[in-house]
Amino acid sequence: MHNPQLNARGELTHLLTLEGLPPDVIRTILDTAHPFVSIAEREVKKVPLLRGKAVFNLFFENSTRTRTTFEIAAKRLSADVINLNIGSSSASKGETLLDTIDNLVAMDADIFVVRHSQSGAPHLIAQHLTAHGRKHVHVVNAGDGRHAHPTQGLLDLYTIRHYKKSFRDLTVAVVGDILHSRVARSLIHGLTTLGTAEVRAIGPRTLMPERVEALGVRMFTDMRLGLAGCDVVVMLRLQSERMKGALLPSPGEYFQYYGLTQEKLAQAKPDAIVMHPGPMNRGVEIDSPVADGERSVILPQVTFGIAVRMAVMSMIASAA
Amino acid sequence: MHNPQLNARGELTHLLTLEGLPPDVIRTILDTAHPFVSIAEREVKKVPLLRGKAVFNLFFENSTRTRTTFEIAAKRLSADVINLNIGSSSASKGETLLDTIDNLVAMDADIFVVRHSQSGAPHLIAQHLTAHGRKHVHVVNAGDGRHAHPTQGLLDLYTIRHYKKSFRDLTVAVVGDILHSRVARSLIHGLTTLGTAEVRAIGPRTLMPERVEALGVRMFTDMRLGLAGCDVVVMLRLQSERMKGALLPSPGEYFQYYGLTQEKLAQAKPDAIVMHPGPMNRGVEIDSPVADGERSVILPQVTFGIAVRMAVMSMIASAA
Amino acid sequence: MHNPQLNARGELTHLLTLEGLPPDVIRTILDTAHPFVSIAEREVKKVPLLRGKAVFNLFFENSTRTRTTFEIAAKRLSADVINLNIGSSSASKGETLLDTIDNLVAMDADIFVVRHSQSGAPHLIAQHLTAHGRKHVHVVNAGDGRHAHPTQGLLDLYTIRHYKKSFRDLTVAVVGDILHSRVARSLIHGLTTLGTAEVRAIGPRTLMPERVEALGVRMFTDMRLGLAGCDVVVMLRLQSERMKGALLPSPGEYFQYYGLTQEKLAQAKPDAIVMHPGPMNRGVEIDSPVADGERSVILPQVTFGIAVRMAVMSMIASAA
Repeated sequence: MHNPQLNARGELTHLLTLEGLPPDVIRTILDTAHPFVSIAEREVKKVPLLRGKAVFNLFFENSTRTRTTFEIAAKRLSADVINLNIGSSSASKGETLLDTIDNLVAMDADIFVVRHSQSGAPHLIAQHLTAHGRKHVHVVNAGDGRHAHPTQGLLDLYTIRHYKKSFRDLTVAVVGDILHSRVARSLIHGLTTLGTAEVRAIGPRTLMPERVEALGVRMFTDMRLGLAGCDVVVMLRLQSERMKGALLPSPGEYFQYYGLTQEKLAQAKPDAIVMHPGPMNRGVEIDSPVADGERSVILPQVTFGIAVRMAVMSMIASAA
Repeated sequence: MHNPQLNARGELTHLLTLEGLPPDVIRTILDTAHPFVSIAEREVKKVPLLRGKAVFNLFFENSTRTRTTFEIAAKRLSADVINLNIGSSSASKGETLLDTIDNLVAMDADIFVVRHSQSGAPHLIAQHLTAHGRKHVHVVNAGDGRHAHPTQGLLDLYTIRHYKKSFRDLTVAVVGDILHSRVARSLIHGLTTLGTAEVRAIGPRTLMPERVEALGVRMFTDMRLGLAGCDVVVMLRLQSERMKGALLPSPGEYFQYYGLTQEKLAQAKPDAIVMHPGPMNRGVEIDSPVADGERSVILPQVTFGIAVRMAVMSMIASAA
Repeated sequence: MHNPQLNARGELTHLLTLEGLPPDVIRTILDTAHPFVSIAEREVKKVPLLRGKAVFNLFFENSTRTRTTFEIAAKRLSADVINLNIGSSSASKGETLLDTIDNLVAMDADIFVVRHSQSGAPHLIAQHLTAHGRKHVHVVNAGDGRHAHPTQGLLDLYTIRHYKKSFRDLTVAVVGDILHSRVARSLIHGLTTLGTAEVRAIGPRTLMPERVEALGVRMFTDMRLGLAGCDVVVMLRLQSERMKGALLPSPGEYFQYYGLTQEKLAQAKPDAIVMHPGPMNRGVEIDSPVADGERSVILPQVTFGIAVRMAVMSMIASAA
């Protein structure tokens, strides 16, 4: 079956998930992002690559933070950006998702950045566009349900490559609520695709997907064992609804077992880096001395995230 | 009495309603829109006609869809766009409408795009600006109460002219909730002004204004009779509050009598076009095979709508 | 102690409060604003001073009006503007204020315009940026709690200087709810810094800070006495929550004692000007014939406010 993210020439035309994306495409995205990092250091932080193009931020689920990163990336590419919080508009007027999309395509949208609580919504939109011959309109998944968050996965990969150069000999641990995390899922797919030596999933059994090993990871419920010898530690955000839910005893107890402290981090390699997708719950999944410590690369992740999103949007806009 | 929409030289300076707008002015708007349609097909979809001008989207009533079309049109003209949802701001702080306007004029607004639940609000603003010598500030009505939605009327006229060339020999049917529809009102005024041979209003008597014939239309309560021999069928959206209200039995029954199906559409001419202002209620006022069928020009309406709004804004900005 | 608003060369790098700002710096801001007033009268109301810079409007407290003035000022300087209503986003996800700031700095923010219900929040952000060596990132206080609203104070100063030329011989009265007003506080600091001959605070004792004289003002509870011989009358907005509260009997009674009528205004000098920060409560703190009268400079205040904000942002952006 043809990969719906690639056009007939094998170029990236939608970014829906890292699952099944060829390693060369992932590497091209990371390579393309590289020069965009330094644009941010210039006096005028703009390039004209998307000048006159319309980027629609379609957020069916609220996320100021992710929306902002795409808005900045698009504006830095000189695009016109239209923010649509769909929760409060047509969707609630009974219009179907695909009617909304057709309307925006008729307004000459070039790129849809889609956030949706339903897994698969961006994929459905991309299929619909392809089925109707809209090759010049592109979709970027900005997080769909528990499914995928591919630009977050890509910025995580970029960060790891930046600090560790190659994936081949690395041991990477992803810690926390793997079960509900689209961030974890996207990162794990990316890491395995790029040939990471060992990927570990660390967390309580109640927050671990069934058959997590099928994703190509080693599972640990003991955090100290799991961190032993790691090069990279990726902490996941603990959603507050989980804290109150039946799956966990309390934030305090969670912190005791799975919160990243300097003492637990000492199990990892001395030069291990610490990552977090944000926003952080200090004192729940991560201790402040670690978050603000010298091994933390949490803020560089954010900077690289803008560059990676610029790379993705400029690549898909030039695919036809 | 002087037409408040025209300046001393007879140029369009505000767009408030199609009622009473001279046919030449309407035709000039449609002619001006024409080249803007093809801008959307260019690589860089921008012209510098409103560069350095400030367009304020003043939405006292929420409408993401309409606001978006104006935002795109203004950005494509290179204007700076400021979106104000007034519901949640100064208006609720006890400031009067005209004080809000005066303040925004003092911030050097050039164009106000106004949506308001009160009929006549845009007219009041235009009068106020004229009375205070603000000739360089312009108002576009983006829908006021049940009164008018002139840019929707203009895009409907553009669409009809695009497909049918001339209005002289046409029979156009407007179907549904005529009573509450500013869209219907604006379109009917436009059609009669441009000399359309016959305009029909089709709908249940409870959703028909008293003395609807005074608008220059023939009334039909039987949809099949009303559609017979039509060149253009314009379906209106059935607001969900009507569906639940006392004026109608149920959405299902409404569909049975006034929903546009292929079987009912067969009464119209074989080359009749089908229009709808959106967002559609599929299965209520229109059947999916019709909405998605080859006679549907619903999505081209949206595209033409951007061009028409660009035309209106560029014309009024050059009037002084 | 070093003034946190100035860099090592004494240039303005943050604007947090007018308290303690050297008079030369205030005068430089007013002088810098002057040419920006006339930009608004040009055909293309833009200058490229902030081209490629990112201005973040961080509004932890909703204020469409103030946000709009900063948005216009930034766009007129050609900046990219990102509006963040933080109430509904990361802040509510448990992220700390300073983590939010660090993240936005990592996205290469250049200027933060901060509105916050907590007094001192902008100061805290500025301190944090300085402590972490972020010299190229700047903070403008757009109103913090009851503390300060320095751009409002500056536009008030600009307006007074525009109409009265010099502060040396002026008597300026500030009337109303001095106690809760950051506007009053900032203006009083500015007026005393620039050597205004006499500053008066007029209002009921319940709405007057304790030891108001320590601010360098003369207190009056009788409005007629307080207005006698004034050159400038600055009316404050009466927040509706005060009207209902225990501090005041009723809006009607307030108007009787402290509402500015033409009769009360007759106590001031014949060429006295009337100011108000907006939005006005007509019939509460100000009578319509005064608000709309020839001595009112309320709308010029708004116009000058855009220019003053352009001045502040362009000055801090060039400090390093």
